[in-house]
Amino acid sequence: MLLPQIQKPSDLKSLSVDELASLSAEIRQFLIEKLSVTGGHLASNLGVVELTVALHYCYDSPQDKMIYDVGHQAYVHKMLTGRMDRFDSLRKYKGLCGFVKRAESEHDVWEAGHSSTSLSAAMGMALARDLKGEDNKVIAVIGDGALTGGMAFEALNHIGHEQKKLMVILNDNEMSIAPNVGAMHNYLSKIRSDKHYMRAKDELEGILKKIPAIGGKLAKSAGRVKDSLKYMMVPGVLFEELGFTYLGPVDGHDLGKLIETFHQADNVNGPVLVHAVTTKGKGYKPAEVDSHKWHGASPYKIESGKALKAVGNPMYTEIFGQTLIELAEQDRRIVAVTPAMPSGSGLIPFSKAFPERMIDVGIAEQHAATMTAALAMEGMKPVFAVYSTFMQRAYDQIVHDICRHNANVMFAIDRAGFVGADGETHQGVYDVAFMRHIPNIVMMMPKDENELRHMMKTALDYNDGPIAYRYPRNNVVGVPMDRELKNIPIGSWEYIRKGEGYAILAAGPMVQLAEEAADVLKREGIQVSVVNTRFLKPLDEQMLLELGRQHTKMIVIEEVSEAGSMGSAVLEFYAREEMYDLPIHLMGIPDLFIEHGSISEQRAEVGLTVDALVANVRKLASGQPFSLTPNTYSS
Amino acid sequence: MLLPQIQKPSDLKSLSVDELASLSAEIRQFLIEKLSVTGGHLASNLGVVELTVALHYCYDSPQDKMIYDVGHQAYVHKMLTGRMDRFDSLRKYKGLCGFVKRAESEHDVWEAGHSSTSLSAAMGMALARDLKGEDNKVIAVIGDGALTGGMAFEALNHIGHEQKKLMVILNDNEMSIAPNVGAMHNYLSKIRSDKHYMRAKDELEGILKKIPAIGGKLAKSAGRVKDSLKYMMVPGVLFEELGFTYLGPVDGHDLGKLIETFHQADNVNGPVLVHAVTTKGKGYKPAEVDSHKWHGASPYKIESGKALKAVGNPMYTEIFGQTLIELAEQDRRIVAVTPAMPSGSGLIPFSKAFPERMIDVGIAEQHAATMTAALAMEGMKPVFAVYSTFMQRAYDQIVHDICRHNANVMFAIDRAGFVGADGETHQGVYDVAFMRHIPNIVMMMPKDENELRHMMKTALDYNDGPIAYRYPRNNVVGVPMDRELKNIPIGSWEYIRKGEGYAILAAGPMVQLAEEAADVLKREGIQVSVVNTRFLKPLDEQMLLELGRQHTKMIVIEEVSEAGSMGSAVLEFYAREEMYDLPIHLMGIPDLFIEHGSISEQRAEVGLTVDALVANVRKLASGQPFSLTPNTYSS
Repeated sequence: MLLPQIQKPSDLKSLSVDELASLSAEIRQFLIEKLSVTGGHLASNLGVVELTVALHYCYDSPQDKMIYDVGHQAYVHKMLTGRMDRFDSLRKYKGLCGFVKRAESEHDVWEAGHSSTSLSAAMGMALARDLKGEDNKVIAVIGDGALTGGMAFEALNHIGHEQKKLMVILNDNEMSIAPNVGAMHNYLSKIRSDKHYMRAKDELEGILKKIPAIGGKLAKSAGRVKDSLKYMMVPGVLFEELGFTYLGPVDGHDLGKLIETFHQADNVNGPVLVHAVTTKGKGYKPAEVDSHKWHGASPYKIESGKALKAVGNPMYTEIFGQTLIELAEQDRRIVAVTPAMPSGSGLIPFSKAFPERMIDVGIAEQHAATMTAALAMEGMKPVFAVYSTFMQRAYDQIVHDICRHNANVMFAIDRAGFVGADGETHQGVYDVAFMRHIPNIVMMMPKDENELRHMMKTALDYNDGPIAYRYPRNNVVGVPMDRELKNIPIGSWEYIRKGEGYAILAAGPMVQLAEEAADVLKREGIQVSVVNTRFLKPLDEQMLLELGRQHTKMIVIEEVSEAGSMGSAVLEFYAREEMYDLPIHLMGIPDLFIEHGSISEQRAEVGLTVDALVANVRKLASGQPFSLTPNTYSS
Repeated sequence: MLLPQIQKPSDLKSLSVDELASLSAEIRQFLIEKLSVTGGHLASNLGVVELTVALHYCYDSPQDKMIYDVGHQAYVHKMLTGRMDRFDSLRKYKGLCGFVKRAESEHDVWEAGHSSTSLSAAMGMALARDLKGEDNKVIAVIGDGALTGGMAFEALNHIGHEQKKLMVILNDNEMSIAPNVGAMHNYLSKIRSDKHYMRAKDELEGILKKIPAIGGKLAKSAGRVKDSLKYMMVPGVLFEELGFTYLGPVDGHDLGKLIETFHQADNVNGPVLVHAVTTKGKGYKPAEVDSHKWHGASPYKIESGKALKAVGNPMYTEIFGQTLIELAEQDRRIVAVTPAMPSGSGLIPFSKAFPERMIDVGIAEQHAATMTAALAMEGMKPVFAVYSTFMQRAYDQIVHDICRHNANVMFAIDRAGFVGADGETHQGVYDVAFMRHIPNIVMMMPKDENELRHMMKTALDYNDGPIAYRYPRNNVVGVPMDRELKNIPIGSWEYIRKGEGYAILAAGPMVQLAEEAADVLKREGIQVSVVNTRFLKPLDEQMLLELGRQHTKMIVIEEVSEAGSMGSAVLEFYAREEMYDLPIHLMGIPDLFIEHGSISEQRAEVGLTVDALVANVRKLASGQPFSLTPNTYSS
């Protein structure tokens, strides 16, 4: 066993290439075993074992900067940098982060979670290095999927122009989370599959050597032709045209070839792109066969690859996917747009039912958003299905292209609220604050799956501009489902129960939580009202006026940033209405990034619990002053 | 004169190519004359005269969709679609919009203002067309500068993959607003200047035809080599690799060639990129010589090209640029990062003083933002100089890369608040609402240019994370300047005057406005306090507590969206502190997009005036109920 001897990257340096290969096998075995218990990003990490080993063998972290795009494929890097013993806590509360994490190690130099940031990071680090007169290496590892994100191209364009010395490793596994789409993908496939390119180059050079012998008119242009060809007859012409030296394609599981290629790259003065072809899930059959399913794995049985997951209610995502099919059967205008998340967004059944109306644009939220505006302006009914956290990428397009045009775009905002193990980079807790101030948008959130279905119908029938429904990364409540889908009047809230004195305003999963708190309080003789604020914008102003008149105190509880979200909208409304005598207590997420753990641990951390809500109402009832929202997070 | 006969695009159809050329000359003359009075985007429009004439000659608007990227180069399009008589009102309040505007004409099918959206719009329209079984043309006109925006690449990647029939016209004038940077620019230059490509292709085909005669080993590979070459030996290989048929480069001022190329494009089944080379400012010498200066022209004397602009105080932008040089002389860590706005952001002097520390990334706000995070993490002190409206493009990068990393990035947010003639796409009125809820950020706004300088020093000396100062598109106040730059304590506000009963909270230009109102009120015997809330985050909580105790009523006035901005933060604070007895009236921008006009007209439209503020305080004093913020805008 070599693995126990590797405490730090420098321990690799004395190993032979054969030993590195043995080590790689041990790393694979370790990951397959550990992740069978914890779950995690198995397939992508199995794909980069040799790549990561070769990097740490050839370079000196942390002086040399290793930047992992997205950062979920850094498990091997974590193992080689002294964190092997923490894998039992992977993605658990206070445990090892599933992404690169600066607080964990000096070897973690760049955090991510969202894709396509690594090239910009590499450029910043290379610029800083040169300005400081230092000479460390800067290396970015980016997948072929992440390369389609616009900001990656912005960085390529800038790096190619400035000719800074840095290395981009294109980890080409023909996959992002979903099978890759886009012209870039087609291009890479061509390079990979078509030896043609390399052969054509070699053969053509042979031909050209003979040209002078032909003599006459042709000979005089041969030099020029050669120059042209030398530049163009390489497989990575697209990257070469953008100013990179292209090396590859190289087998990303061949340690010897990787090491050789890295040495070659070191001798280039300027940006290099190393095209490494890898297999996602390499070395574990079930993951190799369906790397897509194994992108983010639940705990599994090693022998069979079968998930150990207990069967529960379906996710909101699934209800969305099913309902969209129902609606699309009735309405030919519906098209679904996804930025590389057909499966995560529950759209696989839709894509089978309506292949023509399923548009996967790749990792390209900006393009997706703006394209939906154009689709809507031409009479279609596009649904932009997107995770709350990734929608952040399209903020400007939502303002400038969708809302300013007042286009009839429907937003299906998935993973709204806390998301659990993916942690702080993926929390869907800002969309209310970053969308509420945009003119023309309507925003909804359902208290349960039945309401989600009505909201989807409501959105479809709404023709006055953009409209969004946001739903959590949770199993559904399990309520009875209405057969008939009906419209919910825009801007209308509903009483869940009527009490006296105190009103709790809540949306989404917080409605259930408020109900549970109300039950507890009822036993204590405190009868609170609970209101389902299912429209986050516009507010139900009539009900707010009524609530203000009929109640003495109010709590707004929401699983989004307390700053700028619905509680803040309620305060603004009462200020506008000059209703100043109504104490309103806000319970939301404080001004901090909340790390990985289970959703319930994350809620507990910020005081979004039945207990905290009950305690707050008791305080209201006793006339005691409030403490601020409980916060056990130390930043 | 042909021009007066052109009432609609179809009037062009009967003209000969020679007549179209005469018409183009008349259009140029018209623009040079009209814009000498109104100002406007002269250079870019002079560059697309023939291009636009040829498009309307060859295609049938509005059935065929013409999409102008950014949309400031659509003056010729406006002239040809019945709006010639409105050019005296160009960019004026209630007048002709300087950008494409759907409300103006059925020929305006896609609005913009921000760059790089046209390809996504074209793809959406092409998808909708095909789903509806229609067969209109879809044409996007995009500049070489806009092509570097990441979302344009996302769209290219998607279009190339889907192979939808549409035409992209690359209007290559070697310029965006600023001289273009980036590898894509270098690539286009090469195509343009180097006839090599075309010649090499022709000659090589000649050579290859002879290869079989050479016989033997070479012959058998000739077929394969030929295939390869046929595909690769075209000038637009980069676009061809992405799935486009590349046509060009074509002289964008040669009507005959343009028309011929468009016909050629029509016969291609799939996406076509027509590479048209144009000259910005074509036909007006001063603009041809310095098209950069003439991007957005003030009124000018036609003969000399000299601006008629009255000399006033410098802009905040200039003070920023000067002060950054001062600071950079003292501190070698400072680097300036601009997304293609070196001139607009006042950084030309800086770029001359510190060429190594001036980083222009092209139109690439996302890359710029993320790169600054990496620069900061490596010990530099990057200043991200960006217009408020364009910073919207980097929202996710600000959350995910800058604030989550708590990187020491300084933001110089220019054009904060209303921007005047550029209108609704450019208003800098959302940055407070979309940044306030992000953990770790500090946000400032100076009341005058002297304070801006101190804020820049404060930001430089602050080492606890990201910090922003935002300043308006205005001339400075003209206050005396301190020699010594000093630190302003983080989160500290200041009293401008102390009154009794009523407090006005204001930042930036609203401080001056509050002061003027206070003077008026003083004459009436009402003594109000005026507070400069120079930190928008964090709030000065001590002063808020004190203000709450010492005043009975409060007005927060701010030139940003009322929803979610500082007024809302103040309400949240008092709610948290359980201070419910303090009526707070918010004066901000209502939930509407505000169109072009002068800044003072825009302020008047939403009631951000001395008069409105005075009237509101009078109402407070009289105990009358408030009316809502005056709003003359009808949406």
